[in-house]
Amino acid sequence: MEKLIPWTHKVQYYETDQMQVVHHSNYIRWFEEARVSMLEQVEAGYDRFEAEGVLSPVLTVESEYRQMVRFGETVVIHGAVESFNGIRLVIRYQVIRKEDGVLCCCGKTRHCFLDREGRLISLKRSFPHFYEAIQRLPRDIQEKER
Amino acid sequence: MEKLIPWTHKVQYYETDQMQVVHHSNYIRWFEEARVSMLEQVEAGYDRFEAEGVLSPVLTVESEYRQMVRFGETVVIHGAVESFNGIRLVIRYQVIRKEDGVLCCCGKTRHCFLDREGRLISLKRSFPHFYEAIQRLPRDIQEKER
Amino acid sequence: MEKLIPWTHKVQYYETDQMQVVHHSNYIRWFEEARVSMLEQVEAGYDRFEAEGVLSPVLTVESEYRQMVRFGETVVIHGAVESFNGIRLVIRYQVIRKEDGVLCCCGKTRHCFLDREGRLISLKRSFPHFYEAIQRLPRDIQEKER
Amino acid sequence: MEKLIPWTHKVQYYETDQMQVVHHSNYIRWFEEARVSMLEQVEAGYDRFEAEGVLSPVLTVESEYRQMVRFGETVVIHGAVESFNGIRLVIRYQVIRKEDGVLCCCGKTRHCFLDREGRLISLKRSFPHFYEAIQRLPRDIQEKER
Repeated sequence: MEKLIPWTHKVQYYETDQMQVVHHSNYIRWFEEARVSMLEQVEAGYDRFEAEGVLSPVLTVESEYRQMVRFGETVVIHGAVESFNGIRLVIRYQVIRKEDGVLCCCGKTRHCFLDREGRLISLKRSFPHFYEAIQRLPRDIQEKER
Repeated sequence: MEKLIPWTHKVQYYETDQMQVVHHSNYIRWFEEARVSMLEQVEAGYDRFEAEGVLSPVLTVESEYRQMVRFGETVVIHGAVESFNGIRLVIRYQVIRKEDGVLCCCGKTRHCFLDREGRLISLKRSFPHFYEAIQRLPRDIQEKER
Repeated sequence: MEKLIPWTHKVQYYETDQMQVVHHSNYIRWFEEARVSMLEQVEAGYDRFEAEGVLSPVLTVESEYRQMVRFGETVVIHGAVESFNGIRLVIRYQVIRKEDGVLCCCGKTRHCFLDREGRLISLKRSFPHFYEAIQRLPRDIQEKER
Repeated sequence: MEKLIPWTHKVQYYETDQMQVVHHSNYIRWFEEARVSMLEQVEAGYDRFEAEGVLSPVLTVESEYRQMVRFGETVVIHGAVESFNGIRLVIRYQVIRKEDGVLCCCGKTRHCFLDREGRLISLKRSFPHFYEAIQRLPRDIQEKER
């Protein structure tokens, strides 16, 4: 299991809304930023996936907003694999405000894998190097990581 | 219970991503479009909320993607109140592709209500006209509506 | 020269920023919404372009913000062809607030046309039906249209 | 004149469109990211502006796209003050692809300054510390900076 560098995101002005906090849809995009970064760190980045004709669409998204994040703040987004069997991948996220370490948002995304023809595939069978790569992702967000 | 006009959204080019489908984060924005439209139709629009100092942040979002939606398509987003007690409001959504009536995405958002000082309030107690308005929203997405 | 139906856009909450007005980047997206709608009305929509292997990237964008647009308002975006020779297309836009007819934003985009190999093409020579279609677009935004 | 750290941006999947390049509207947001970073580096960040009741809306935006930027790439956005008299501020931008140093996009934004009542102000007269701060921004994007 590799130790990952978590993804850091500086909140942008265009991410705020007129409630003067980050619009809730942007956290879904931050999950993606963190997921892309995680996968790249184990050599299973989306560019490699797509170069080999693998797509990994999002099946479900869940997001729970605990504290509002504001412009001027920076967040660290931690990700971990909740479950993975080669066919389905579930990733969990925690969005932590860097300034005070407060957990602002928790989330989860579910993914499958498709080949160029849009057929569901098992990474374990069809792309074992990607399967092994995802196995190296952390299974848990450690308290101390935060 | 009022009969609502569902929200229609023409998919925009800027909503697509390089998988050549709508990026999953945009459905969360479409839920908001539909929610805003629903609330306006019972005279409880966000502008009225904010004029009286009521904020209604999103507590959780869930979204399940069933069929990819593409540029050039139009979707109809139906919403219904799953539960509401004046303090918590849960809204469900169905994103239907207009061209063929296929259900492409289901979702759910949970909301609370805050006053100008950011304190949790009961609409029933503090803003009964908004409480009554939300009571008039449909409780179910009718198959035939689609 | 055909009479076009201008594009109408209801301002969304997610389009606002913490200055409590629409974020300036969204007008660029509205120009695209209007452009797509214009081209569709003369049977030269982006989907038809892409079906025949024609891409029409944006070369330049200009936008001038005159009045802030807010959540709850609706805008009408008028477009007109400023110049077109088959190789370069320049489109002008006016964003008019529906409620009071005030001109809130003016803009301009320049485009070229590429084939599947990414080579610059002349629509006049290679896709005369698209050339003719774009000729039918209005050359002017009429005051009375607004 | 201070030497600034230019703003670095990793291209995100959600920033792409179905032409498989970054959607042109996102460069406008990158200009903002760079502008915010520049102003912060001379202690004139938007948060300080807003804390003292100063707003700095965008009056015009211009953007010229020279090379398409793609997912997986990183860009560096350089900014410089083109002109500033305390009342009007013009900033120029260059978006450079980090991998090969290619200039992908040039841009310009014009700004004014408003007080809490929305009145046009001169920073020189009303907020001399902000005026001095902006004077310290570079006037030129040096070739060697890139």
